[in-house]
Amino acid sequence: MSQLKTKHLLGIKNLDREDIELIFQTATNFKEVINRPIKKVPSLRDVTVANIFFENSTRTKLSFELAEKRLSADVVNFSASGSSVKKGETLLDTVNNILAMKVDMVVMRHSSPGAPHFLSKHIDANIINAGDGTHEHPTQALLDTFSIQERCGQVEGKKVVIVGDILHSRVALSNIFALQTLGAEVMVCGPATLLPKHIGELGVKVETNIRKALEWCDIANILRIQLERQQMRYFPSLREYAQYFGVNKQLLDSLNKEITIMHPGPINRGVEITSDVADSEHSIILQQVENGVAVRMAVLYLLAGVA
Amino acid sequence: MSQLKTKHLLGIKNLDREDIELIFQTATNFKEVINRPIKKVPSLRDVTVANIFFENSTRTKLSFELAEKRLSADVVNFSASGSSVKKGETLLDTVNNILAMKVDMVVMRHSSPGAPHFLSKHIDANIINAGDGTHEHPTQALLDTFSIQERCGQVEGKKVVIVGDILHSRVALSNIFALQTLGAEVMVCGPATLLPKHIGELGVKVETNIRKALEWCDIANILRIQLERQQMRYFPSLREYAQYFGVNKQLLDSLNKEITIMHPGPINRGVEITSDVADSEHSIILQQVENGVAVRMAVLYLLAGVA
Amino acid sequence: MSQLKTKHLLGIKNLDREDIELIFQTATNFKEVINRPIKKVPSLRDVTVANIFFENSTRTKLSFELAEKRLSADVVNFSASGSSVKKGETLLDTVNNILAMKVDMVVMRHSSPGAPHFLSKHIDANIINAGDGTHEHPTQALLDTFSIQERCGQVEGKKVVIVGDILHSRVALSNIFALQTLGAEVMVCGPATLLPKHIGELGVKVETNIRKALEWCDIANILRIQLERQQMRYFPSLREYAQYFGVNKQLLDSLNKEITIMHPGPINRGVEITSDVADSEHSIILQQVENGVAVRMAVLYLLAGVA
Repeated sequence: MSQLKTKHLLGIKNLDREDIELIFQTATNFKEVINRPIKKVPSLRDVTVANIFFENSTRTKLSFELAEKRLSADVVNFSASGSSVKKGETLLDTVNNILAMKVDMVVMRHSSPGAPHFLSKHIDANIINAGDGTHEHPTQALLDTFSIQERCGQVEGKKVVIVGDILHSRVALSNIFALQTLGAEVMVCGPATLLPKHIGELGVKVETNIRKALEWCDIANILRIQLERQQMRYFPSLREYAQYFGVNKQLLDSLNKEITIMHPGPINRGVEITSDVADSEHSIILQQVENGVAVRMAVLYLLAGVA
Repeated sequence: MSQLKTKHLLGIKNLDREDIELIFQTATNFKEVINRPIKKVPSLRDVTVANIFFENSTRTKLSFELAEKRLSADVVNFSASGSSVKKGETLLDTVNNILAMKVDMVVMRHSSPGAPHFLSKHIDANIINAGDGTHEHPTQALLDTFSIQERCGQVEGKKVVIVGDILHSRVALSNIFALQTLGAEVMVCGPATLLPKHIGELGVKVETNIRKALEWCDIANILRIQLERQQMRYFPSLREYAQYFGVNKQLLDSLNKEITIMHPGPINRGVEITSDVADSEHSIILQQVENGVAVRMAVLYLLAGVA
Repeated sequence: MSQLKTKHLLGIKNLDREDIELIFQTATNFKEVINRPIKKVPSLRDVTVANIFFENSTRTKLSFELAEKRLSADVVNFSASGSSVKKGETLLDTVNNILAMKVDMVVMRHSSPGAPHFLSKHIDANIINAGDGTHEHPTQALLDTFSIQERCGQVEGKKVVIVGDILHSRVALSNIFALQTLGAEVMVCGPATLLPKHIGELGVKVETNIRKALEWCDIANILRIQLERQQMRYFPSLREYAQYFGVNKQLLDSLNKEITIMHPGPINRGVEITSDVADSEHSIILQQVENGVAVRMAVLYLLAGVA
C-alpha cells in the first residue's frame, strides 16, 4: 500500500510528485465520504490531534477541526492567547508539555518561519504546518492544486498566475512549489514593491501588468490584500490597488477568453476582486473551501500511518 | 409523522400554534431523556452543527452545545472575535465558507436584526436564530412558554406580564408572539422610556405601574436590566429602577395572590428582582434553564428532518 | 470495591492516606491505558463534565480535558471571559445555571480561596478544585506525589524541599498536605519575604539558603516565579532571584549527590531553573505532565462513582 515518504507535512518543498498524487487520490475518496449522508469514517479513532495555533485563524482551524472530527480523531485545541506562551514559556516547552499528555499529531500555525521544522527535530508526533510566518502553508497549496485538477482535468501544462502581495504570502510560495512539482507554468503578478527581489530564481515569470498576466494564464489565483499591512510605506492604497490590480468583470470580458478564478479567502470584495467575478461560474472559490476539508483529511490520514 | 412547516427557526412570527405544540411535545420527550442516567440519543449522528456567534453569549451557546451533543451531532464553534469577520469579510461570505465545509445546520447569533433571515434566502442549511439584535430570540420564547405550560398546565388564557426594558428586548418580542399564538393575554410593564411607542399595536396591554401589573397577572416574566445601557440618557439609574420596578417579596406578599416568577437570566440580584423572590418556590427560573436544553434539542431534531 | 470517602475533591486536606493511595492505584491503571495504542475507555460515557475556569489556564485545563475525553465523558467548556460573570452574575447563579443543564461533574478554577467549598455546600454535582486562589490545587499535588512514588519507589520517608514563592502558591500548600499525609519530610525554601509567617506551624522545615536546602533533600520541587508579581514591593528582581535561589547545574554538581528535580510548569528557563537542570536525567518534569492526565482520570473516575 502506498504511503507518504515523510513523517511530517512541513512544506510543499519536502514533497515529490508521487506524494502529492497520493494525497490527491486519497482526498478524492474523502471528498466522496463528506458528500454522503454519513460524513464520518472511523479511520483516526484513538488518535489525538492537537491544533496549536499561535496566530489567529478561523477558516484554516475550522477546516482542520472538521477534517479531524470526520476522521473520528479526538481533538484538543490550544491557542496562544491567554496561554503559557504569554507567561514566557519557550515554544519547545509548550509543545513538549502538550505531547507529554500523549498527543499523536500536532497541527501548528506560528508566526515564525521554520517553527514547525524546528519542532520536528525535537519531538516525536507527526507535525502538520498550518502556516509558518511568510514561509509555507502547504495544505492551502494542496487544496488549491487539487481544485485546479478537479476543475481543469490536470495541473500539468496549465498556466497559473498568482496575483497580489507575493512578498508576504506563504500561500504564494507553497503554491509555486506545488504547481511546479505538478508541471504547471507559474507567473506572479503584483506591484513591484510586493514582489520578492529574487523571485525569478524560483523559475516563475514575473509581471506587473494585470492585463498581460490575465492574457497569458488559464487560471488566476488572486490573493487577499492584507488590510493590516496598509500602514507600510511601500504599500499602495486600497483604491490604487483595486484600480491597477483588482480583477473585475469588465477586465475579464475584454479578454475574450475563459479564466478559472481562485482565491484563498477571506475576500475583500471590491479590492482585489469584485463580486461579479467572485460569484461567477468561473470562480471555484467555494470549491476550494470544500476541497480543503477533504485534502486535510487525506494529509492527516496518510501521516497517521507513518511512524 | 408530524413535522414543522418551516425549514428554519428565524422567529416565533413564522410559527403557528401547531408548530409550537409539536415542539413542546418533542421537548417533553427529550426532557425525559436528559433526566435519565443515559442522557444521549443518536438522533443527529452524522449531522454537523455550526454555532456561529457574532455576539458574546455564554448560557445560550452552552445550552445549544449541550443540546447538540446530547443528540450526538458533531459540533463546531465559530465566534466572531479574532475571526475573518474582523478582517472585513461579509456575513454571507463567512457563512458560505462554513457551509462549503459541509455543515448541515447553523445556530446563529448576530447583532443585526434580520441577519438570519437574510442568510436563509441565500444558503441551504437549516438556520436557527439564537438572537438577532433587538428583534427575536425564538428559542428563549419557546422555553419560556414551555415552562409556563409545564408549571401551569396550559398557556391558553393565562395572564402574563413582561417586566423591564421592552424597547431593547428580543426576549420580550418573541415572548409576545409565542404567548399570543398560544392564547395567553400579554401585558408589558416598564418605565415609559423603555416601552416602544407603538407596542399597543401588537395587541398587548401596557402598564407603567408594577403593582398594578402584578395585581393583574398570573405569571411575571422579569427581564434582565442590561447594565451596559446605563449610560443612555433615557435610562433610569439602577437604584431608581429597583425602587419603582424591582420585584421583591414585600411587594408580592402585599398582593395576597400567587404569581409564577420567571427570568431569562443572568439575574441582577437586588436590581430587577430580589433574592427572596428569585429563590422562592414560585420562581421557575432554573426550570427555564433546564427546559432550554430540551426545547433546543426539539428544535434541532425537528428542523434536521426538513430539507 | 474501594471508593473515595469524599464526594468532591476540594483540597488535599480532605483526603486521608487511604484515599490518596486509591487514587494512585487507579492512576497507575489509567497510565497504562493512555500508553496503549487505544487510549480511550468508556468509563464516563453518559457523564457530562463542565470545565468552569474563572481564571486563565492552559495546561491544567488541557490536562483535564484530555482526561475527560479519554474517559469518554461529554465535555463542555466555560470560561469567564465574555461570560455572564462579567455581566454581574453571582458565582452560585452561574454554576446553578450550568447544573440546571444537567451537568454531572464540575471542574473549577477560581481566584477566590474557598470558592469550590462554598459551591459544594449548595449544589449537587461532584466538584473538583482545579485551583482556588492561593489556597489549594489538589490534583497538582496528587500528580507531584504520584510522580515521586513512581521515580523513587515510595513517598514515605523522602525529604522534599519546595523552592520559591511559597506565600502565593496553592501548589506549595497542597503539596505540603499530600507529602505529610504520605509520610514525607517537607522543607520550604525561598526569600524570607515570600515565606508565610506561620508556615512553621504546618510542621515543615524552613530554609532561606538554597544550598543548605539542596544538601538536605532527596527531591526538589522548584516552583515557577510568577513574573506578574514583579511589581510588588517585597519581590526580588528576577536577576537577584536567579542568583540566590535559581537551581543550576554548577550548584547541583557541587553537592556531590543525586536530587530528583520537579517543576509544575511553565518553566522560566534561566530564572528559577536553568536548562541544563530542567532537561537533565534527574528531572521528571515531563513525567509530571504525563502523570497529570492519568491522575486526573483517576480522580474523575473515582468521584463519578460517589453520589
